[in-house]
Amino acid sequence: MGAPMARNLIRAGHDVTVYNRTRAKAEALAADGARIADSVAHAVRGCEVAVTMLADDNAVQEAIFGSAGMLQALPPGAVHMSTSTISVEISKKLAAKHTAAGQGYIATPVLGRPEAAAAQKLWVIAAGPPELVERCQPMIGALGRGFTIVGRDAWQANVVKLASNFMIVSLIETLGEAFALLRKAGISVHQFLEIANTLFSSPVFKVYSQLIADEKYEPAGFRMKLGLKDVRLALAAAEEQAVPMPLAGIIRDHFLQGIALGYGDRDWSAIARVIAANAGIENPS
Amino acid sequence: MGAPMARNLIRAGHDVTVYNRTRAKAEALAADGARIADSVAHAVRGCEVAVTMLADDNAVQEAIFGSAGMLQALPPGAVHMSTSTISVEISKKLAAKHTAAGQGYIATPVLGRPEAAAAQKLWVIAAGPPELVERCQPMIGALGRGFTIVGRDAWQANVVKLASNFMIVSLIETLGEAFALLRKAGISVHQFLEIANTLFSSPVFKVYSQLIADEKYEPAGFRMKLGLKDVRLALAAAEEQAVPMPLAGIIRDHFLQGIALGYGDRDWSAIARVIAANAGIENPS
Amino acid sequence: MGAPMARNLIRAGHDVTVYNRTRAKAEALAADGARIADSVAHAVRGCEVAVTMLADDNAVQEAIFGSAGMLQALPPGAVHMSTSTISVEISKKLAAKHTAAGQGYIATPVLGRPEAAAAQKLWVIAAGPPELVERCQPMIGALGRGFTIVGRDAWQANVVKLASNFMIVSLIETLGEAFALLRKAGISVHQFLEIANTLFSSPVFKVYSQLIADEKYEPAGFRMKLGLKDVRLALAAAEEQAVPMPLAGIIRDHFLQGIALGYGDRDWSAIARVIAANAGIENPS
Amino acid sequence: MGAPMARNLIRAGHDVTVYNRTRAKAEALAADGARIADSVAHAVRGCEVAVTMLADDNAVQEAIFGSAGMLQALPPGAVHMSTSTISVEISKKLAAKHTAAGQGYIATPVLGRPEAAAAQKLWVIAAGPPELVERCQPMIGALGRGFTIVGRDAWQANVVKLASNFMIVSLIETLGEAFALLRKAGISVHQFLEIANTLFSSPVFKVYSQLIADEKYEPAGFRMKLGLKDVRLALAAAEEQAVPMPLAGIIRDHFLQGIALGYGDRDWSAIARVIAANAGIENPS
Repeated sequence: MGAPMARNLIRAGHDVTVYNRTRAKAEALAADGARIADSVAHAVRGCEVAVTMLADDNAVQEAIFGSAGMLQALPPGAVHMSTSTISVEISKKLAAKHTAAGQGYIATPVLGRPEAAAAQKLWVIAAGPPELVERCQPMIGALGRGFTIVGRDAWQANVVKLASNFMIVSLIETLGEAFALLRKAGISVHQFLEIANTLFSSPVFKVYSQLIADEKYEPAGFRMKLGLKDVRLALAAAEEQAVPMPLAGIIRDHFLQGIALGYGDRDWSAIARVIAANAGIENPS
Repeated sequence: MGAPMARNLIRAGHDVTVYNRTRAKAEALAADGARIADSVAHAVRGCEVAVTMLADDNAVQEAIFGSAGMLQALPPGAVHMSTSTISVEISKKLAAKHTAAGQGYIATPVLGRPEAAAAQKLWVIAAGPPELVERCQPMIGALGRGFTIVGRDAWQANVVKLASNFMIVSLIETLGEAFALLRKAGISVHQFLEIANTLFSSPVFKVYSQLIADEKYEPAGFRMKLGLKDVRLALAAAEEQAVPMPLAGIIRDHFLQGIALGYGDRDWSAIARVIAANAGIENPS
Repeated sequence: MGAPMARNLIRAGHDVTVYNRTRAKAEALAADGARIADSVAHAVRGCEVAVTMLADDNAVQEAIFGSAGMLQALPPGAVHMSTSTISVEISKKLAAKHTAAGQGYIATPVLGRPEAAAAQKLWVIAAGPPELVERCQPMIGALGRGFTIVGRDAWQANVVKLASNFMIVSLIETLGEAFALLRKAGISVHQFLEIANTLFSSPVFKVYSQLIADEKYEPAGFRMKLGLKDVRLALAAAEEQAVPMPLAGIIRDHFLQGIALGYGDRDWSAIARVIAANAGIENPS
Repeated sequence: MGAPMARNLIRAGHDVTVYNRTRAKAEALAADGARIADSVAHAVRGCEVAVTMLADDNAVQEAIFGSAGMLQALPPGAVHMSTSTISVEISKKLAAKHTAAGQGYIATPVLGRPEAAAAQKLWVIAAGPPELVERCQPMIGALGRGFTIVGRDAWQANVVKLASNFMIVSLIETLGEAFALLRKAGISVHQFLEIANTLFSSPVFKVYSQLIADEKYEPAGFRMKLGLKDVRLALAAAEEQAVPMPLAGIIRDHFLQGIALGYGDRDWSAIARVIAANAGIENPS
């Protein structure tokens, strides 16, 4: 995900230095004009804006707060622009620590799969102090086809990203349950899509209804283990706000069952396979 | 719902006799060219196709199997075309009883609200013996803008209708939970719609996300009590097929809570109000 | 279940005529002193109290309201004492129809497995018009070791029976979830019982915790299909009262999954096997 | 909770030094013969066994791993005996860090309310390296009326404690749902207890069924906020083991709703009030 985003920043005329724990991944960007750094600290030295795309809270903990992490090396006045899907809790911690260090911090998580990133079609959800968000607009604009500013506290963008992913996976759960019923009633799910499209015709519906109707969960576009992470973060955000989300709880359970059954590395839409298995529907051969 | 459907049949050139328990409702159609009947038996005497749009299983029980019901009056060889959202169980019973009486039976439930019926924009889900479905195509075509034939057993169309309504109300539940989280996190749900539309942009999403963002549940387009009926029927169909549908179970509970709290006659999207109340979000004034 | 109950009535000195659709089952009671009847109508002719123990609502429909059913044959003034676990809806119908026919009706469902019935250890839940309940006390007393009168409307006893069974199966669900966690954490569930008994030490806990710890689901004491029936009835009763019961919804789904996986005739505690399977725990060999 | 435990250790003849962040609480034990310490480090200096009873993971983080925490002051070879209800994750971290520091660590969470602690009636769940558990037996024995050793890894005792609390709160949820149904059906829940006791007669059932029947949630024996913590930890332990626990998910949602409605400091059995409110049952006056 990070590579196409870096390419878009370079194409927009920014001067980009990249770092990845797997150096070969970073080096692939040298041909595009990126400088390659040996460490996070090295990458951010002297920069104006540090853009991160990290897997989860643990990766943030290490890359930002670890020894030789960003917090010690980012110049005062520079801005950390975090595009990762991470917890509200660690986003609040990032805001506090960067501020204490005289640095800026905004959250700009993105909607879209890697193909969308490559095609510069991501949608960016931005939040943070208005003057910092404004200062980063050239970078935000380079990443995708548009953006929405959702609040003055960076963590609010993380909540919106988690709510968006929750909505997608709820659609997957819905399709899984509906298809299980239809299949056992002897109805063609592909034919059902013709009907459902009259109601739901939408980009995300098209992608997932096709995957689930075809039971094509590999290769994974977004792995179930990452899906579990996102639902866990949504539930944690909801707990902090004292919001019951029973549907999210069900989805979490289906992810856990999927992982217990060995589907952890399939596409997250494979919870539809879990639901089908629970209804006694055999795997398609 | 029955009135605009009858008008469309008249406009398509069919010879239509109407019956409604509330005679005034039937008489409103006289100006359009309908004949008015005094009873179900009277309405179907000598007809080729009897089209029904009834509220629920109990109404079917009375209108079809009751004394002076359709079963005794429909001519042999004529077809009962049922557009109601009813249970799989009673649809199977209708097939058996009509067949035993030398009559035909197909199920043709429709997708769309009354406005869609008036604009001839319903989508018809059809199932039943192929020769009967074909014979009824002029009527099916007059009701809406298109149709899908989903099986040779009439009850299969009922399953598809129930699955479609389940998908709509799952979207409502999803919106309800996501919006409750966003509201408590201080995020504008109207602004969130801008983002969500990049993912979900679809007819049904637009209607319900707007209703829920505005918390505008009255007047009801489709009452919560009817929503409960449909979910109950979906759960019964799923039980017959041994399909667990946990999401449907949650929605059922939210409908029951809504009814217990006095929202039974609001739009079914008011389960989003139940979800918000459970998160401690006050009613908007 | 009916046989040991009939024996207890005979032992208490009552004059008993028995009827069962499978005549051999009835004849087994002849040695105990029962008269054998050829039909329900024959069995209740001239009796003072007609005691029924039937499988479900359909059996009641046939035995009471069918042609040659009890309603037509029970003498005016005699009482129908229904010990079956049936729906609130049909219990209300029984009350109305018997009253209209000048007959009495009370509901007296029982708590306990067949062994408890044989040992005269059932507990009877009674409801109905007080004078009728009082008149039936010799029979009620003969069935078990005690009874509780819960209301003046017969259906109230049915609600109490359904709530009791719901409590038992909730305990089973709880054990299933807790044991799945413990097993995957490498903890002996038999050892855990030592701890749990300090908290829960109770008759029903002992029975089910042992069955589930041993994964001994056959032969069934109470079949999963009957368990599903009872939960369905509890959910229907709750729906009528507008009471959300999410735990009951989960249990229903686990029963459905169990039936889909072919466990319908195992003991209802086999939902713990469903829960274990969902966590990826293999069947014990 | 810590005070009665300390008194029992003193009574058993142990030489006890106590520390509490609120010094007055520690000083109340001076009359019983305890020495009072100014800090955790001071309290454990030179000791053989350090017994902790802390509120949650954060308190452990500060007291053990913070500056002037136990890790730096506990003598090599001494044992940390943790009686707190904490996460599996932090229990594993404690084991690793203490071992690396040449110190011992066992987990010995306890079952029972403060009254049980005072009466020396706790039940201790112990796990850890066998030689350490054996060395601590005089202390374990002094705390309660018995104990069970559940494994060689300390965190296993934490899982068992979390599973035990899950079972208790599942009983509460079950009672809440059953009572809501019974109340709306016009049945006395106190009378129902007479019946339920024939099935469930057990210490924990008696306590909670009475609290919920009386709707007496204040003063809290165990606060809802702590209940939420325990369910959250059980769900986290289950997630690590890939065990779906849907019932735990429902309970979590009811706790969140309770907290959103302002019941966070009532007894955790007040989720029965949440369930009743969802069914439209007014607060008793």
